[in-house]
Amino acid sequence: MTAKAEETRERIVDAALQLFREKGFDETTMRDIAAAAGVATGAAYYYFRSKEELVMAFYMRTAEEARTLMPELIGRNTDLRKRLHAAIGLKLSQFAEHRRLLIALVRIGIDPKHPLSPFGRETAPLREESIDAFRDALEGANVKIPKELRAELPNLLWLYQMGIILFWIFDESPGQKKTETLLDGTLDLIVRLIRLSSLPLMGPVRRRLLNTLRAVTV
Amino acid sequence: MTAKAEETRERIVDAALQLFREKGFDETTMRDIAAAAGVATGAAYYYFRSKEELVMAFYMRTAEEARTLMPELIGRNTDLRKRLHAAIGLKLSQFAEHRRLLIALVRIGIDPKHPLSPFGRETAPLREESIDAFRDALEGANVKIPKELRAELPNLLWLYQMGIILFWIFDESPGQKKTETLLDGTLDLIVRLIRLSSLPLMGPVRRRLLNTLRAVTV
Repeated sequence: MTAKAEETRERIVDAALQLFREKGFDETTMRDIAAAAGVATGAAYYYFRSKEELVMAFYMRTAEEARTLMPELIGRNTDLRKRLHAAIGLKLSQFAEHRRLLIALVRIGIDPKHPLSPFGRETAPLREESIDAFRDALEGANVKIPKELRAELPNLLWLYQMGIILFWIFDESPGQKKTETLLDGTLDLIVRLIRLSSLPLMGPVRRRLLNTLRAVTV
Repeated sequence: MTAKAEETRERIVDAALQLFREKGFDETTMRDIAAAAGVATGAAYYYFRSKEELVMAFYMRTAEEARTLMPELIGRNTDLRKRLHAAIGLKLSQFAEHRRLLIALVRIGIDPKHPLSPFGRETAPLREESIDAFRDALEGANVKIPKELRAELPNLLWLYQMGIILFWIFDESPGQKKTETLLDGTLDLIVRLIRLSSLPLMGPVRRRLLNTLRAVTV
């Protein structure tokens, strides 16, 4: 792609995100987006076949930004709770101005068969990258992870992150303060439970967790 | 309501549920429902102002059935795992033939502000009833519940049930076998964790859980 084409493409994404924010996702048409970006409707369709492709471009942009910022944020500290807080906090701050878009997306994204679902096939590479951030956060942190949990724990933390994002999307408290309270409290609990999971008495719990996860994710 | 009116009302609900199952919720109109029930469209609107009210009637019917069946199912056994399995299993079996309707409902129900959301204000009495079933299951079961968790645990179990139902709605394995595996495995884990939660070493975990729940549910 030429520099000029790349610039036009980015301008269309910017225009789309602004319209999704101001008018709403369902209420915005490709024609609106083209007009706001100052290109012909046909040109907009040349870059993006649908609004869905524009959402995918938003996902990619967020992932790319996280790829740049995440290592430094995680590397700042060896405290596991702080590392997890930084990883999830980055996602929430990236989404902050797109809350309205996410409310529209959650309705379609809850279905794993939808191409824009975070649980679906089409978004697998982005999901894997997000899971890897949790793998990095666990690696070299100040909490010993039982060997048998190392492979699965990043997946569970990702699922937990999705729960926090879901809560945040519908959190109507001023400045989404409740999400912050929930994140602080549950991260504290999670880190405590990870620590406890190393105890010999937790052996049966670890094994039951693992075989359940394996059986349902095949 | 006269016996005849009651009978007509039930016939309209039956017709609606059959159409939601065969055609889908979004694709069914009040006119279709009236025709299938053998009443004039105006008569259908006399009983139900919208399809949404018909869904609420479906919720009520399910709750009423559970009210009759639940005590006997829970009372059969003092084993907590079996009691919880019976309570959640009943809900899943009630929903079994309405999976298609639930797929449509999950998209709107995920938003707590929607009147049909299980998390919303309008469904609070039904939610409370469902939470009470978990309270009854815990009461007199073979597992000691730490005193400080007694008030909140039924709410958490209800939230867990919602997670299982969500997984089930999108479970494409034959006969939704994966949901059964997930239910068995996670119930085993939950009962193990409830048992462990009585240990003195779990005191800080219990307190952190409680103050987080209180802070976010105010």
